[in-house]
Amino acid sequence: MTETGYFTEENSAEVVTSRNADAKDARLAEVMDSVVRHLHAAVKEIEPTQEEWFEAIRFLTEVGHMCNDWRQEFILLSDVTGVSMLVDAINNRKPTGASESTVLGPFHVPDAPELPMGSDICLDQKGDPMLVKGRILDASGAPINAVKIDVWQANDEGFYDVQQKGLQPDFNLRGVFRTGPDGSYHFKGVKPKFYPIPDDGPVGQMLTRLGRHPYRPAHLHYILEADGFETLITHIFDPDDPYIHSDAVFGVKKSLLAKFDLIDDPARIAAAGFDRPYYEVVHDFVLAPET
Amino acid sequence: MTETGYFTEENSAEVVTSRNADAKDARLAEVMDSVVRHLHAAVKEIEPTQEEWFEAIRFLTEVGHMCNDWRQEFILLSDVTGVSMLVDAINNRKPTGASESTVLGPFHVPDAPELPMGSDICLDQKGDPMLVKGRILDASGAPINAVKIDVWQANDEGFYDVQQKGLQPDFNLRGVFRTGPDGSYHFKGVKPKFYPIPDDGPVGQMLTRLGRHPYRPAHLHYILEADGFETLITHIFDPDDPYIHSDAVFGVKKSLLAKFDLIDDPARIAAAGFDRPYYEVVHDFVLAPET
Repeated sequence: MTETGYFTEENSAEVVTSRNADAKDARLAEVMDSVVRHLHAAVKEIEPTQEEWFEAIRFLTEVGHMCNDWRQEFILLSDVTGVSMLVDAINNRKPTGASESTVLGPFHVPDAPELPMGSDICLDQKGDPMLVKGRILDASGAPINAVKIDVWQANDEGFYDVQQKGLQPDFNLRGVFRTGPDGSYHFKGVKPKFYPIPDDGPVGQMLTRLGRHPYRPAHLHYILEADGFETLITHIFDPDDPYIHSDAVFGVKKSLLAKFDLIDDPARIAAAGFDRPYYEVVHDFVLAPET
Repeated sequence: MTETGYFTEENSAEVVTSRNADAKDARLAEVMDSVVRHLHAAVKEIEPTQEEWFEAIRFLTEVGHMCNDWRQEFILLSDVTGVSMLVDAINNRKPTGASESTVLGPFHVPDAPELPMGSDICLDQKGDPMLVKGRILDASGAPINAVKIDVWQANDEGFYDVQQKGLQPDFNLRGVFRTGPDGSYHFKGVKPKFYPIPDDGPVGQMLTRLGRHPYRPAHLHYILEADGFETLITHIFDPDDPYIHSDAVFGVKKSLLAKFDLIDDPARIAAAGFDRPYYEVVHDFVLAPET
């Protein structure tokens, strides 16, 4: 144990970090050195009263007590403070021209069925029909063959199947597709709607006090995997969504804005195989080469 | 809701904090602005992998799950990162010459018995006897009358009575005394011993990986209250304790070092009312005027 100077308000962070000199886990020591320095800087800036400090302790305790096998309130806290998106950004710096990533979110399931290209993933026919299509390209603009495209989305009321077991068919609005040599994909779904993150816990209460809403703008999720390329985890967003500029978890990036065109031409409706007007979304992705 | 720019790695903190523009709780917004800026700075410095980020989520969740009516693991986390002492320091800036504060700790009980000056608070006669004495003074060196002195300590094995209900008498090693016009105090107790903070949870595991021990050096707790003066919550420490330079919670300050003298002179032993050698601790306190 390294002997350190006595604690003072001025040298507080140095006294604490100097205790890690004999750490068994060098990376943890590096992480905690940074955490302690920035945490002490925040405390010195905030100058909390003892009561405010205890309110912070109570808040973190409530966040912990809200966590169970189905609910991860600390991930929500990370999400609404932009930390999840920042970690995503740091781990997914893409070369110029490559499509950008965004957060995975808690609603992906690993075993969605692989479907023939063009299938309708909306199993209950609720909501406004939607046709999504585009191409998966490399940085040179060439199509990528055999891309595994895993898509999932909330329904027209803003709920994923796993949130409404029994109310939605199993694997509703989920599917895995594979591109051919032309790199193209298309599938049918339902026009998605904005939805709130779970806001009945301490994180939701914090958002209320901060004057923030809990909504995420309407989006579709994608995971794109292909040999020789970096896996891309991302969404595409409806730019006309009322919450497009205020996603509660900061997931929106300009390059992820798609376009949802309402198609009411009877010939096109018939050609797409729908019986009523539908939304058409055309969005290409560019995968970065594996590094 | 203020509309903000799209999230990027560079502007991450500004995008998040700009969402608090319409906060209902202005102080919370101020606190969260600071927390978010410093948290994002730490994340940018650390560059955690997604797995490391999730390890942090798991750690905080375990800390939360460890908290119950008897155990506050988030306070322990605050203690071992020096945050509790920093908040204490910020809230107890003393004028030059006044005695310094340190953390209250979790073992104070509010209803300890008021005892005649000189009483022995050690109710089970275990360990090495100790006589503690001194004066409570104002900044000019004048004695303060009618100071309420609330003292408590761990026993010779490092346990407080509330940790060993049934094994120690109720209110063992606790007492409230009141000074007279000469400002002096004296009481008997037992020479205290170092003890570990609770280390069977995630915070203890973190300390192990950081190469840190969980011990606090031997100390006595005081709360000093008098009309017209700032209440002082503090400890005095045994400077010969093996952990005096590495208190797990950073509570030691140079001005809080007392001196524990072993007295083996039979005449002094008899005069003090002991039947064997004892430790004598002489420590004065200077209270700051109420502001």
